[in-house]
Amino acid sequence: MTRKVGVIGLGHVGTAIANYLLVTGAVDELVLVDTNELKVNAEATDFEDAAANLNWHSKVVVNDFAALADADVVVSSVGAISLQNDDAKHDRFVELKFTSQAAKEVGTHLKEVGFNGVLVSITNPCDVITALYQRFTGLPTDQVIGTGTLLDSARMKKAVGQALDIDPRSVTGYNLGEHGNSQFTAWSQVRALGHSLPELAETEGLDLDELAEVSRAGGYTVFHGKHYTNYGVASAAVRLINVILNDANAELPVSNWNEKYQTYLSYPAVVGNNGVVQQLKLNLTDEEEQQLAQSANYIKTRFDDVYAKLTAND
Amino acid sequence: MTRKVGVIGLGHVGTAIANYLLVTGAVDELVLVDTNELKVNAEATDFEDAAANLNWHSKVVVNDFAALADADVVVSSVGAISLQNDDAKHDRFVELKFTSQAAKEVGTHLKEVGFNGVLVSITNPCDVITALYQRFTGLPTDQVIGTGTLLDSARMKKAVGQALDIDPRSVTGYNLGEHGNSQFTAWSQVRALGHSLPELAETEGLDLDELAEVSRAGGYTVFHGKHYTNYGVASAAVRLINVILNDANAELPVSNWNEKYQTYLSYPAVVGNNGVVQQLKLNLTDEEEQQLAQSANYIKTRFDDVYAKLTAND
Amino acid sequence: MTRKVGVIGLGHVGTAIANYLLVTGAVDELVLVDTNELKVNAEATDFEDAAANLNWHSKVVVNDFAALADADVVVSSVGAISLQNDDAKHDRFVELKFTSQAAKEVGTHLKEVGFNGVLVSITNPCDVITALYQRFTGLPTDQVIGTGTLLDSARMKKAVGQALDIDPRSVTGYNLGEHGNSQFTAWSQVRALGHSLPELAETEGLDLDELAEVSRAGGYTVFHGKHYTNYGVASAAVRLINVILNDANAELPVSNWNEKYQTYLSYPAVVGNNGVVQQLKLNLTDEEEQQLAQSANYIKTRFDDVYAKLTAND
Amino acid sequence: MTRKVGVIGLGHVGTAIANYLLVTGAVDELVLVDTNELKVNAEATDFEDAAANLNWHSKVVVNDFAALADADVVVSSVGAISLQNDDAKHDRFVELKFTSQAAKEVGTHLKEVGFNGVLVSITNPCDVITALYQRFTGLPTDQVIGTGTLLDSARMKKAVGQALDIDPRSVTGYNLGEHGNSQFTAWSQVRALGHSLPELAETEGLDLDELAEVSRAGGYTVFHGKHYTNYGVASAAVRLINVILNDANAELPVSNWNEKYQTYLSYPAVVGNNGVVQQLKLNLTDEEEQQLAQSANYIKTRFDDVYAKLTAND
Repeated sequence: MTRKVGVIGLGHVGTAIANYLLVTGAVDELVLVDTNELKVNAEATDFEDAAANLNWHSKVVVNDFAALADADVVVSSVGAISLQNDDAKHDRFVELKFTSQAAKEVGTHLKEVGFNGVLVSITNPCDVITALYQRFTGLPTDQVIGTGTLLDSARMKKAVGQALDIDPRSVTGYNLGEHGNSQFTAWSQVRALGHSLPELAETEGLDLDELAEVSRAGGYTVFHGKHYTNYGVASAAVRLINVILNDANAELPVSNWNEKYQTYLSYPAVVGNNGVVQQLKLNLTDEEEQQLAQSANYIKTRFDDVYAKLTAND
Repeated sequence: MTRKVGVIGLGHVGTAIANYLLVTGAVDELVLVDTNELKVNAEATDFEDAAANLNWHSKVVVNDFAALADADVVVSSVGAISLQNDDAKHDRFVELKFTSQAAKEVGTHLKEVGFNGVLVSITNPCDVITALYQRFTGLPTDQVIGTGTLLDSARMKKAVGQALDIDPRSVTGYNLGEHGNSQFTAWSQVRALGHSLPELAETEGLDLDELAEVSRAGGYTVFHGKHYTNYGVASAAVRLINVILNDANAELPVSNWNEKYQTYLSYPAVVGNNGVVQQLKLNLTDEEEQQLAQSANYIKTRFDDVYAKLTAND
Repeated sequence: MTRKVGVIGLGHVGTAIANYLLVTGAVDELVLVDTNELKVNAEATDFEDAAANLNWHSKVVVNDFAALADADVVVSSVGAISLQNDDAKHDRFVELKFTSQAAKEVGTHLKEVGFNGVLVSITNPCDVITALYQRFTGLPTDQVIGTGTLLDSARMKKAVGQALDIDPRSVTGYNLGEHGNSQFTAWSQVRALGHSLPELAETEGLDLDELAEVSRAGGYTVFHGKHYTNYGVASAAVRLINVILNDANAELPVSNWNEKYQTYLSYPAVVGNNGVVQQLKLNLTDEEEQQLAQSANYIKTRFDDVYAKLTAND
Repeated sequence: MTRKVGVIGLGHVGTAIANYLLVTGAVDELVLVDTNELKVNAEATDFEDAAANLNWHSKVVVNDFAALADADVVVSSVGAISLQNDDAKHDRFVELKFTSQAAKEVGTHLKEVGFNGVLVSITNPCDVITALYQRFTGLPTDQVIGTGTLLDSARMKKAVGQALDIDPRSVTGYNLGEHGNSQFTAWSQVRALGHSLPELAETEGLDLDELAEVSRAGGYTVFHGKHYTNYGVASAAVRLINVILNDANAELPVSNWNEKYQTYLSYPAVVGNNGVVQQLKLNLTDEEEQQLAQSANYIKTRFDDVYAKLTAND
């Protein structure tokens, strides 16, 4: 009955998530999985070398897929960030060829061992990969969630918080759609200091387009300077993981299955121990609805394409 | 009166420490310093992108040495790990040429801005660099501490804990001397399950030499698999930082000034808000005393040599 | 530069706050003050008996007013809850005669020792006592804050959260005015699931009056069952204390000085290390504005009366 | 697979444990049980009123014994502290008549619902009640543990820490035997600053008898000043609970079944998710062995007596 989490893919993001979980005592058992045996064993040893100096005890298990069978949450942080480093267009889809194959393999493997918890996917391109995981694990759509624009929303809150000199946690609202270039900030839903952002934009002289750009392009600044991003997205993932472990029924803008658009995309949902409990019904503006539809269409098209390829020979 | 910590050197270790402090709310203000402007700004942005999803608020400041003047703790995690990657001999001294120069510059800079808190150094070779920091900052020896064998002791506790199937935190004792190849486990001081390890070695059939080797060579296994080590040493550093911030007067095996040997070396000391409060007086075996003397001599010789070079033209 | 907090009044609320701060490592030094020497020493000993089993070290100091001079935050949890037990009308003003005198004495004492941090008052009746503290300490209004309706707002969020089966932390908005019988929920400002509560009341069939009553009368249910309330208000206080210690600039509905009404009352403000940074400017409905004015008038009248009495012979 | 803990008996100790678990996010679901419906509901409401201001979400369930069936840990904090208030002899056995009956009822009830986790008992007289719980729940002895001298050991560490001006967590060792008047500090096992306490007593001029008296009588000082003790013992209980939840295999001096003496008594054991994993084998002095035997005999005699009475009519 301990809290058990698996992390698949021990790159910059996966190790940051694992370490965050360990140093905060959020998990009792952590299963680390990576195809690079040398790397995953080195990370596990590094974590074990930390144990005597931590406040919390956690068991670390390496490359044991069977141990994921009864995990509460499995996180996919598989990636091929080097592909993005070779790309000038800042498009998370450059990783797709590699990561879609990985999603098929990992998802199939999770199905085989009987995993029936919540799968949290960070792997890019986030929405398409999350959708692939749902197909290949065969899990109900509620139990497969992408971190999606939870990170982009945090970037937006940071930008708004800095503009107003307030804690980003005192800003509410979300970026919606693809965790990618077609995403947008739903300004009609963003609030701070007791007002909607469009109101504040007038009274405080804020440039919403500029703030939206900060949140949309935020990752690229980080990427440019360190050749990957990890701590921002790791914090988003851990927040989502804790909401699941705690059965919090908390509202989060994550990538989840959208009945209307028949695709995964980021849209606020209430999340608990079994994944998505309910989806919000926002009063978006017409323009925002249009942006959402475009983003949905983009994701769906890309998913259909890659899914067809992956199952061509099945 | 907020808790303020500076981290100088935002490589794998520095960022892991910074993230650990942020996600646990251990600091109210964090000053990040690195000569690579692009990198340090990217890390700061990555941390700020996490803020909306964290439980704690902390202010992040970039490359402002003056802001370190009233810091409680400044951590030196400057390094040149790539030099170790090019070296086959697993000797932390390959970084010395680069890091000794950095210690001189950073130490002098800290002195100029009037820093008067506790300097915690992780930079390798740990004991020599810690000693250099003390000289160049001009701080009292009590206020300059190296993480030293706090990490190696954690590795030893892990090895003993695994051999006995107990929590490494239920093992007490230390590795002493250089955070390097001349270190040793002072088995006469290590205890678990109510017995000294030499006693347990007999009753439980443990091979102490093998366990000591695990702790001494532990870092190289990690290094071999991931080309650097960070989470283990980051946890050691954060434990030391918290002991200082909390004014805990807790006993830790860290690199501190040894009057008898006239050098920095790892030997257990009681640490509080002003750094080292008192040094323990262990009843080591004759062999352990000899090992300590050898380790001390090795560090002192290397320090004298590099210090002479660094001050040749002053 | 450690985090230092004083708690004055070691009753059920004061000890709950102190213990919360200690077990979460939120403070490095805690100063406990109470006129009952026997009681405060017993509490301090009880806390010290916990120390060996905690993850964090904190220093506990007893009945040393001078030690409060450089505290970051001083909390007033002075009270005479037995007076409420003897009263059938559920009016926090039954404590006034006792607590107003205490506020004068404690406030004067804090002024004498030169306390210049933020004073957080929980003592009932909250708004009047907070105002008295500001007068007697002579601190700028920004530096004197009452927990006010931060607790009532939490009760409202709980009620809304239970009605919608969501985490209370996914509900935003506030109760305003007096932390007492004249308070009200500003429903126009409360939001959940992406909608204002008046909207949700229609679509989800919620009875707002009933929910407001739960939050207004919530304390009396607790009071009826355990003869005091402490954990709810302690959590509100600790949240406020952490926002101050972290310099978070977070938005909270707390009792703060209102220029328009010339009284302390609960109205959302942005709070940081120096107390109130800015006050929000809400678009309340006309009815809500009226309720606020009435609440303000009630507090102001009661304050003027007691302040006149307390200073009659000065 | 969430962390689920039950607390039976919502007095000063039970509520302090519950609050500690909630504010630190240690549990996902907390089941509160008390025969006083009004009181337990009031406490639950008070906790729910805190939820919106906490960092962690937990579900609180009231008086549902069936919900304990799959709990990881059930804590017995049932008590009748008022009986101790009426007694001048400071003997925890004054509560026995009430608490032994409660242990029979609660234990039987836990058996009926099929509870199969670890039962942690704090109820006084601790060792006898723990033994009764084992009998009436029918659980294996490993799964029934009393907090025992974990609290007294913390008091001893505090006393030693204060004498040496070091963190009590830098003191190792234990009080053994009954959590009551026949207990003793096993000084041969206590260590600080790298030495055994008998050694330090000589070099530092410590009076061990005085220090032992502080730890043995510590509770009565607290009791005298506040008419109960709670935070010290709550911290001991939460430490034990976390060790169980984390499956830490950590060494703790708790009340556990002793094969040699055929009774429950406090003696260090390694504790994990299934309770006691192994018992230490200490090299006590002859005098200490004698004290232990006397303490064991005292507990066993009292247990046999009360158990006979409780089962006389079965």
